[in-house]
Amino acid sequence: VVPTVAWEDGAVVMIDQRRLPAEEVFLRCRDHHEVAAAIRDMAIRGAPAIGVCAAYGLALGARNSVGEGEPLRAEWQAICGELASTRPTAVNLFWAIRRMQGCFDAHAAEGGAGLRDALLAEARQIEAEDLESCRRMGDLGAGLLPAAARVLTHCNAGALATAGYGTALGVIRSAARLGKLDAVFADETRPFLQGARLTAWELLRDGIPVTLLTDNMSGFLMAQGEINAVVVGADRIAANGDVANKVGTYTVAVLAREHKIPFYVAAPVSTIDLATADGRSIPIEERAAEEVTHLAGRRVAAEGVSVRNPAFDVTPARFVTAIVCERGIARPPYDRSLQALAGDARAAVQG
Amino acid sequence: VVPTVAWEDGAVVMIDQRRLPAEEVFLRCRDHHEVAAAIRDMAIRGAPAIGVCAAYGLALGARNSVGEGEPLRAEWQAICGELASTRPTAVNLFWAIRRMQGCFDAHAAEGGAGLRDALLAEARQIEAEDLESCRRMGDLGAGLLPAAARVLTHCNAGALATAGYGTALGVIRSAARLGKLDAVFADETRPFLQGARLTAWELLRDGIPVTLLTDNMSGFLMAQGEINAVVVGADRIAANGDVANKVGTYTVAVLAREHKIPFYVAAPVSTIDLATADGRSIPIEERAAEEVTHLAGRRVAAEGVSVRNPAFDVTPARFVTAIVCERGIARPPYDRSLQALAGDARAAVQG
Repeated sequence: VVPTVAWEDGAVVMIDQRRLPAEEVFLRCRDHHEVAAAIRDMAIRGAPAIGVCAAYGLALGARNSVGEGEPLRAEWQAICGELASTRPTAVNLFWAIRRMQGCFDAHAAEGGAGLRDALLAEARQIEAEDLESCRRMGDLGAGLLPAAARVLTHCNAGALATAGYGTALGVIRSAARLGKLDAVFADETRPFLQGARLTAWELLRDGIPVTLLTDNMSGFLMAQGEINAVVVGADRIAANGDVANKVGTYTVAVLAREHKIPFYVAAPVSTIDLATADGRSIPIEERAAEEVTHLAGRRVAAEGVSVRNPAFDVTPARFVTAIVCERGIARPPYDRSLQALAGDARAAVQG
Repeated sequence: VVPTVAWEDGAVVMIDQRRLPAEEVFLRCRDHHEVAAAIRDMAIRGAPAIGVCAAYGLALGARNSVGEGEPLRAEWQAICGELASTRPTAVNLFWAIRRMQGCFDAHAAEGGAGLRDALLAEARQIEAEDLESCRRMGDLGAGLLPAAARVLTHCNAGALATAGYGTALGVIRSAARLGKLDAVFADETRPFLQGARLTAWELLRDGIPVTLLTDNMSGFLMAQGEINAVVVGADRIAANGDVANKVGTYTVAVLAREHKIPFYVAAPVSTIDLATADGRSIPIEERAAEEVTHLAGRRVAAEGVSVRNPAFDVTPARFVTAIVCERGIARPPYDRSLQALAGDARAAVQG
């Protein structure tokens, strides 16, 4: 298994997801600026993976600092600020930074190598917990799927989007292991092609057959009765159950309801943002026009065309059949079920 | 204005739509085999344009034949068969071939140059009627749009898909002329990128601003209130009003209904197929996997992935607000309104 991100000899190392599947190139970030750039430029992406990567970036930034006391605290805050400014939508980024800040505060008096070691240990712990969470979500979610499941997924909510195993693809992996899986359909997911490049690549490596669709085909397949479940990940889940995820998720959810197909979201508790009341308050990142107008470095769209490029959209809670977390399955009404799961989670973080 | 297809010195000449917008290259077909290949390989596409092109291809095939009498008739039938086998979904192809067959039968006794000239005149007539139909559809359809229309279109139902002016883009052109147009959004339309390459190109040449979206973004924009009408073309309309059009059209229609946005289809009467009861009987072409796995000649999808590539889908009549034809606007119940329009049309063809 290729690790999504790892700490190695004082560097944060990750597989460069922009170059998959053609090339397996590893990016070695030697300071936190390089880690921030890797997140911003999508060498690594996926909400839980961004959280793990940012945690390692903070540990790296602290380690590279020669300061102590107040100068170190000021530097630490700048490092946190730089990593927090990389991408706005995935809340796991801010969750991981807050957790690392808690660790910093707990060990600030100690300073020196003790503080640096504690930060690295915390980042490793975030990574280990994420992997364990994915395995539990996978098994819980697989139980929801129909027999002979024919599952559509969107974007890549896989091993590459997490510390490993994946959220939505974790559900698919567990279903495959349990013999419940009949077919997987992957939306190619324009503009970044996470489905064609990443989801197909990692499932095929695991021996799970997958059929690729362009983003406009799933409605046709649903109408033909070829899909009986949808599973996606999430970048942020509001307190009322509205789900921000890769652009196109909302369209899949509307289609699923039209065809009476269950629509499941798999995400760790760190994706639940109880401080955001509903989806209208979730900031939606707009990325560069070139991601849409150019393909493989070549312009395909007519010169002079305007472009919209929202990277995410919001699926209202009423379209979501259930939300699978590592602590259990949340069902409507989500304001209560998510509070029950994520209230716990915040206690766990603080404890 | 670039003509989509034209007769020029005993050849059928067309702009090669596969190379737009980067290059404006003209393809000169000197026999009907080359015309058939141009249709099959999508150098030319769009249901009405395919009809016009096939008509010229038949005129060319007859002109190149040195036969007369029964040998000519046998050859003619083979030519018709070759052109009919190019693409299965757009009914305008079969409509144009039938109309040219009627012309052949009417002039077969004459033979010689008289028959050849009559066939060329008929093809020219089909082209002229298509252009005139588009202008009338455009003006009729523009009347349906709301003031300050913010229109989404899918694929290219434009000048390049017809003899000129376009069906859905004809409606948009007329709305622009009438000052009713506030914005045009074009789905890029994977896998062939007709929206990014062709719709954006031809609207910008006419000075009509257009904003490009990937196929998974329109749901987000509808939810934000940024789109207030949808206009698309059609490849075949069944007797009950079910509409076959470029894959993804059905998804747009489901989204439009969810957001209470009117969904209009613009197509000439030649697209209405009263012999097909409903959408389930419309053959849906599946094209090569490489159109999905490769972009600009380079593989982007993981090796070994399976692919579905239906080129069209079917939008059930209940999602269609109105169908704009050159003879008037059909509204539900479509079984009656389409019969009224297309019954007329068949009489006109026979007359």
